[in-house]
Amino acid sequence: MTRINHQVRLAARPVGEPRDTDWQHVEEPVGEPGDGELLVQVLYLSIDPAMRGWMNAGRSYIRPVEVGEVMRAGAVGRVIASRHPGFAVGDHVSGAFGVQEYCLSDGRDVTKADPAAAPLSTYLGTLGMSGLTAYFGLIDIGRPEPGQTVVVSGAAGAVGSVVGQIAKILGCRVVGIAGGERKCRLLVEELGFDAAIDYQTEDVRKALREHAPDGVDVYFDNVGGDVLDAVLLRLARGARVVICGAVSQYNSTEPKGPANYMSLLVNRATMTGMVVFDYADRYAEGIAQLATWRAKGRLKSLEDVVSGGVAAFPETLMRLFRGENHGKLVLKVAEEQVSEEGENR
Amino acid sequence: MTRINHQVRLAARPVGEPRDTDWQHVEEPVGEPGDGELLVQVLYLSIDPAMRGWMNAGRSYIRPVEVGEVMRAGAVGRVIASRHPGFAVGDHVSGAFGVQEYCLSDGRDVTKADPAAAPLSTYLGTLGMSGLTAYFGLIDIGRPEPGQTVVVSGAAGAVGSVVGQIAKILGCRVVGIAGGERKCRLLVEELGFDAAIDYQTEDVRKALREHAPDGVDVYFDNVGGDVLDAVLLRLARGARVVICGAVSQYNSTEPKGPANYMSLLVNRATMTGMVVFDYADRYAEGIAQLATWRAKGRLKSLEDVVSGGVAAFPETLMRLFRGENHGKLVLKVAEEQVSEEGENR
Repeated sequence: MTRINHQVRLAARPVGEPRDTDWQHVEEPVGEPGDGELLVQVLYLSIDPAMRGWMNAGRSYIRPVEVGEVMRAGAVGRVIASRHPGFAVGDHVSGAFGVQEYCLSDGRDVTKADPAAAPLSTYLGTLGMSGLTAYFGLIDIGRPEPGQTVVVSGAAGAVGSVVGQIAKILGCRVVGIAGGERKCRLLVEELGFDAAIDYQTEDVRKALREHAPDGVDVYFDNVGGDVLDAVLLRLARGARVVICGAVSQYNSTEPKGPANYMSLLVNRATMTGMVVFDYADRYAEGIAQLATWRAKGRLKSLEDVVSGGVAAFPETLMRLFRGENHGKLVLKVAEEQVSEEGENR
Repeated sequence: MTRINHQVRLAARPVGEPRDTDWQHVEEPVGEPGDGELLVQVLYLSIDPAMRGWMNAGRSYIRPVEVGEVMRAGAVGRVIASRHPGFAVGDHVSGAFGVQEYCLSDGRDVTKADPAAAPLSTYLGTLGMSGLTAYFGLIDIGRPEPGQTVVVSGAAGAVGSVVGQIAKILGCRVVGIAGGERKCRLLVEELGFDAAIDYQTEDVRKALREHAPDGVDVYFDNVGGDVLDAVLLRLARGARVVICGAVSQYNSTEPKGPANYMSLLVNRATMTGMVVFDYADRYAEGIAQLATWRAKGRLKSLEDVVSGGVAAFPETLMRLFRGENHGKLVLKVAEEQVSEEGENR
């Protein structure tokens, strides 16, 4: 029986918002693993704002996805064939398998995921790159101290929701900025944030005066744009601004810089960019800490799992930019137990 | 004999560029020092881009100059009467004496200047706040290492010209950005910069590709605007951007933020604001080092001394924003030896 691999490839570099014509839906036969390779059936895809940047040409923190190439994506899956000594059929694994149903891998940067310890989708969120981004960005760059005020934007998103919860664990006052009343309620009622600001209906600057009366010591920015500008005006002396993303700007053909950046001078503050990949040699430390907090019930995993398979990828990505997700946006590609698995056991 | 004190006071808060009507020229009799006070005759005034910010209302790193108040300015002068135990008639002193001919002071934040060691105007430049700003901003925030590339904007200005020379002393490759061929020639031929970029006639981004082929490790920014945006695109991994000023934006009613700030993320770089006043307890260290380098001929003092007295202050300030100065812009208020001095000796 020949398995068919459905893929989504980059057809053209988008200008502004990605359109249907920027994607190519391709079918090809699934290959057999060669020596040292494993074949992974993809179960869940991680949908990330950073994907928009990967589609652009030009130097960035990671090479661009080439036109014609399978779209890059983090994923969890199940090993269905292996000629790699480190992986056996039936293992659950996490890696950059791409927007496709099957992936041949040489095992590099592939880690195992234990479905008994957490749902597989959580290995893309709290126990995956999103959680690690929150952990290292907040702890290493933000360096919050107990009693300080931490503000996070995109607070109901995959990274932001973890940032806020970690800051609470560390003894900080936490204010989340998110879009919509439902998200804001979730932050305060479910995740224990001290306050939430709805940027769609509130004056962020005014709301920060109320919720961060002593100024903002750490600002973890996922959105850029007007929200960043508003928070800059409320920085405390010596504040740390962590630049993790700028989802409000990714589809803009004329991105807007923070007009209030001179607040960095007024407040002797620092703005620092972070990329989680730099912490690869400390991932184990981060995952262990996140898993411990999670096991103790101190860190809730917020996941928004969408079905539809790889064909639904383009539309699912747009949901991120429309701010429709609550927590980690995950696209389900296949049921965990599929009938074909039997033959490979 | 009653001495008359000519002063320039803030008449109105400017919108955009300061206009003549924003200033009030006032004459008043010079007072007598009370107990613990000294009377200073102002000889030289420091003309600084930061003055524009002091004229605005609102929270900043220093309280605004109030409407009706004598305009704040650093100055050097000569003590002509004293009832302060620390200062004697004939002492030369440096302090924030303001845009006026005479200043009564309680001696706080007043330091002595030795005219035998350096020209008095130098105590406003290389051996004053400009030199200290360059020293602490570069060494403490920029943290350049030998062999790294340091770029400085406003490079022919009071702070920039010292930044570049210190970076050379520290063994860095130094590229200055300035306006006009004459300034650029001065940087390379007189001050020993490795290269200079004329932002008025050159494409800064392209020129940086040539002059900073391995990227920019430290960027010391005095100007903001398009130049900041161009340098951001050339940052090296882990670069430090020192935000010292934004002279291109100070008169703008709609200041422009750095659209390319996401380069901080791509390059894991940091942008930090600095205010020299924070280093008050280390001024002695800075001055000692600057004076040593100066005495050894390793640090040249670039001064642009304008005559005209306090009445010329408004026009002299505008020279800064038009980029007409070479090095430290200083307004001469009086001859060092004036006839009246005799009576106070």
